[in-house]
Amino acid sequence: MKIGIAQINTTVGDIKGNFDKIISNITKAKAENSDLVVFPELTLTGYPPRDLLIKKSFVKKNIEVLHQLINFTENIAIIVGFVDEKDGKLFNAAAFIHHKKIVKIYHKMYLPNYDVFDEKRYFTAGSTPCAFELKGVNIGLTICEDIWIDDGPATTLSKNGVELIINISASPFHAGKEKIRLNVITKQAKENNIPIVYCNLIGGQDDLIFDGRSYVINSSGELVQQSKAFKEELSYISNIEGKDEIKFIENENESIYNALVLGVKDYFRKNGFKNTVIGLSGGIDSALTAAIAVEALGKDNVRGVSMPSKFSSDGSISDSLDLAGNLEIPCDVIPIKSIYTSYLKTLKIQFANTKFNVAEENIQARIRGNILMALSNKFGYLVLTTGNKSESSVGYSTLYGDMAGGLAVISDVLKTKVYELSNYINEAKGKEIIPVSTITKPPSAELREDQKDSDSLPEYDVLDPILKAYVEDDLGKEAIINLGFDEAVVTRIIGLVDRNEYKRQQAALGLRITSRAFGQGRRMPITNRWKDD
Amino acid sequence: MKIGIAQINTTVGDIKGNFDKIISNITKAKAENSDLVVFPELTLTGYPPRDLLIKKSFVKKNIEVLHQLINFTENIAIIVGFVDEKDGKLFNAAAFIHHKKIVKIYHKMYLPNYDVFDEKRYFTAGSTPCAFELKGVNIGLTICEDIWIDDGPATTLSKNGVELIINISASPFHAGKEKIRLNVITKQAKENNIPIVYCNLIGGQDDLIFDGRSYVINSSGELVQQSKAFKEELSYISNIEGKDEIKFIENENESIYNALVLGVKDYFRKNGFKNTVIGLSGGIDSALTAAIAVEALGKDNVRGVSMPSKFSSDGSISDSLDLAGNLEIPCDVIPIKSIYTSYLKTLKIQFANTKFNVAEENIQARIRGNILMALSNKFGYLVLTTGNKSESSVGYSTLYGDMAGGLAVISDVLKTKVYELSNYINEAKGKEIIPVSTITKPPSAELREDQKDSDSLPEYDVLDPILKAYVEDDLGKEAIINLGFDEAVVTRIIGLVDRNEYKRQQAALGLRITSRAFGQGRRMPITNRWKDD
Repeated sequence: MKIGIAQINTTVGDIKGNFDKIISNITKAKAENSDLVVFPELTLTGYPPRDLLIKKSFVKKNIEVLHQLINFTENIAIIVGFVDEKDGKLFNAAAFIHHKKIVKIYHKMYLPNYDVFDEKRYFTAGSTPCAFELKGVNIGLTICEDIWIDDGPATTLSKNGVELIINISASPFHAGKEKIRLNVITKQAKENNIPIVYCNLIGGQDDLIFDGRSYVINSSGELVQQSKAFKEELSYISNIEGKDEIKFIENENESIYNALVLGVKDYFRKNGFKNTVIGLSGGIDSALTAAIAVEALGKDNVRGVSMPSKFSSDGSISDSLDLAGNLEIPCDVIPIKSIYTSYLKTLKIQFANTKFNVAEENIQARIRGNILMALSNKFGYLVLTTGNKSESSVGYSTLYGDMAGGLAVISDVLKTKVYELSNYINEAKGKEIIPVSTITKPPSAELREDQKDSDSLPEYDVLDPILKAYVEDDLGKEAIINLGFDEAVVTRIIGLVDRNEYKRQQAALGLRITSRAFGQGRRMPITNRWKDD
Repeated sequence: MKIGIAQINTTVGDIKGNFDKIISNITKAKAENSDLVVFPELTLTGYPPRDLLIKKSFVKKNIEVLHQLINFTENIAIIVGFVDEKDGKLFNAAAFIHHKKIVKIYHKMYLPNYDVFDEKRYFTAGSTPCAFELKGVNIGLTICEDIWIDDGPATTLSKNGVELIINISASPFHAGKEKIRLNVITKQAKENNIPIVYCNLIGGQDDLIFDGRSYVINSSGELVQQSKAFKEELSYISNIEGKDEIKFIENENESIYNALVLGVKDYFRKNGFKNTVIGLSGGIDSALTAAIAVEALGKDNVRGVSMPSKFSSDGSISDSLDLAGNLEIPCDVIPIKSIYTSYLKTLKIQFANTKFNVAEENIQARIRGNILMALSNKFGYLVLTTGNKSESSVGYSTLYGDMAGGLAVISDVLKTKVYELSNYINEAKGKEIIPVSTITKPPSAELREDQKDSDSLPEYDVLDPILKAYVEDDLGKEAIINLGFDEAVVTRIIGLVDRNEYKRQQAALGLRITSRAFGQGRRMPITNRWKDD
């Protein structure tokens, strides 16, 4: 039996577009004499459809289109994900369609409702594992979370004589996830002594990036085939047990970089944007963001803007121009001095007898935000924000200033990782993309005289592990101190993280590359008097 | 038996503060010779604690403090809500503590996981109804959602001989909710022929406003006692069946107004803010917002700012000053003309040969946002945003402009309701608070020459019902047209609603007063190609 694994990039809500993509993959698979072609979870609706699922017309349409698919299954079988409805209840479902007939419909039994997942908000869990026969092979069908459950559907199915398990998934990427996922599937295959074909979604959907990497595992738990990472692919597998084990290769920085590129590319494409404008400060965050944008959108679609103030260093302009030169993108220089002066004049009465403070600092950042948005509104560019996760965690950023924009490219990347990725890009490209002077100079917001990040924050190699422990691993204060950090520093940092929740809840959507990003995966109250002492 | 119903205002995360409030209510109830005092759902943690529940140290602390409570129960019984933990699983729990002993712990059996509720994200459902005996009375204990279930725990308990049901709740307000809630509890009492004491939370927690209104219902389903709306109260009930039925009074505008006032008051108080600054445009939205702010914070804590541009009408300043006069608050007049001119000069090269468009409009709105935030940063004011739900729905607002601020007071209030509430305030106060000229003039953003809302949008009495149908009732296009609206208008409006999701996801937290507010209760993808045709 020849199985096609259609690792496709669906779009949420685009039922017609997803349908067309399914048809085109069926046609190709037929031409290759496939017996079966498998698609990712919720193929027709895209994943995750979120509250679109509450719209009756949406669910109805997806079922209508499922029935249209039937006509395209002459001489081929397909497994396609859709939303089923029965007695007013919704199910995360998969249909096995063969010879122009829906042979089986399976309802996902295990619904994830943690982290970024809200499946119990919409779906009722199925109660029965699903098996069917194709060309004499007894096949078990599972959906995503089902395969993560010990003694779950995979075990039941193999005990009941199933010879192959197919899993259709929409498993989002985070750094290290590919290995975790492989271990889970490998374990299931080995423990149940059964081969597994695992078909995963690829593509960016808002904050989530699906990395594909569909796996084929033999009954000894060996990886025998893997689809591409971050790319659509229709691959085939025929004789699972007869294939040799292949090597599983991990490269964290490459993965993160490709994830971010795909996240940007798909956000633009799926939302109908083509061009971006990015504020370049001469610092490493905006440089990395611009490099990712150029990779995702092409150099002709990226415009840099340097907006120096009287507090900007010489390097601010020259490093931005160097970066723009390396990336071959235009860079306007738009000084903000005269606008800044006009604010101070306008606010002279109100600000009389007050000292320069964060108010004046933020006026500058917000002038820059206003200029970028004006260019966006005038020319249809989407503004990319450039803040990293360390800043976002402690609130070292200006709402409506540097936080203004439609997509936060590196808001889930800690500063130390920003450096790693920048070096990775320069190495991978074999030339200086991110200027070396940008990498080596001390980070600064340049909103007051001689300002350095280190005036307000601990060094990033101290800050970042504390943030990882608090934000990503949910450790309490005591547990973090026990990792070897100074109590006063830890207390101060976690206080900053808690206090700045209001800023993050107004931030642009940020691409998720860790197991715990800000956004829908971390739902903190703003009004929150919890102090972990 | 005398039961105290302690309808208290807890704060999320403030376990110590909530503990103190519990103790003080126990002390008072003891002085009144109560046998039992009942507190709202999740009393110790506040509701909803959201992802604080993922922090082990948080859950641990709440259990420690529960045990400290035991010492305060000599000669009195209490029912208090807390988070229980067993074998690594969390439960939304209530403890019945009597004579310095935890007699029973109940685990909530029905966990809401829809709308603004995410309880299945954190909690495991309990499996056993809970009853205990106090002074010879067999009492059943339920938590919030439990009482909303037909043939649920209330029925099981009454079949098992329970004589009184106590329900501790955190049921958030929306317009009309008090009646829905009363009907549900009445029905349970009547069908199960059992009296019910229903203790609800009061207070603002981010977007949610809990209205209290704790009910006592006799076994015939008659309302015999009701606690205050939107206020803390410790009330007592002794002889439920011996009490006469009282009248249930509804007043929608009064309720919404009080809800918004409490929402503002508690957001400031619980987050440590005292003062606000509000941009006054002369329009009705900022006028209503300022009136609510003055009621919530006191006139000495509210500052208005009028920021006229060359497109502002004369009424813009004079109506703002009239409003400020009526509210007895200061109002700065800060013209933005010179700042606006400096932006245009600075962007002269980039904007050469382009026509005045939304870019220039939004520059003005963002200058105003920057000025308000500068005053906020300089003086510690929290900025209130003034956009209504009609604007927010169709994106008739400027990100980082009029959307800049910490709390969106009326973002869940449709424009037609904004008028109603303004008239309500003038009537309730018996004098002109919102200037009549503000109420009668045609709404305008005043960002270009002679602009009117009606240039871009249908009249609000057409727009608002379409928005209600689409946003609040989740109707599809066809269903909305069938209500009697023009197809072209409906198509255009729902397209605008969909397209502006990105703006709303960067909006300030908005107080929820309808059954479907933007925010955590409506989780739409931004990347979304669904078109309902």
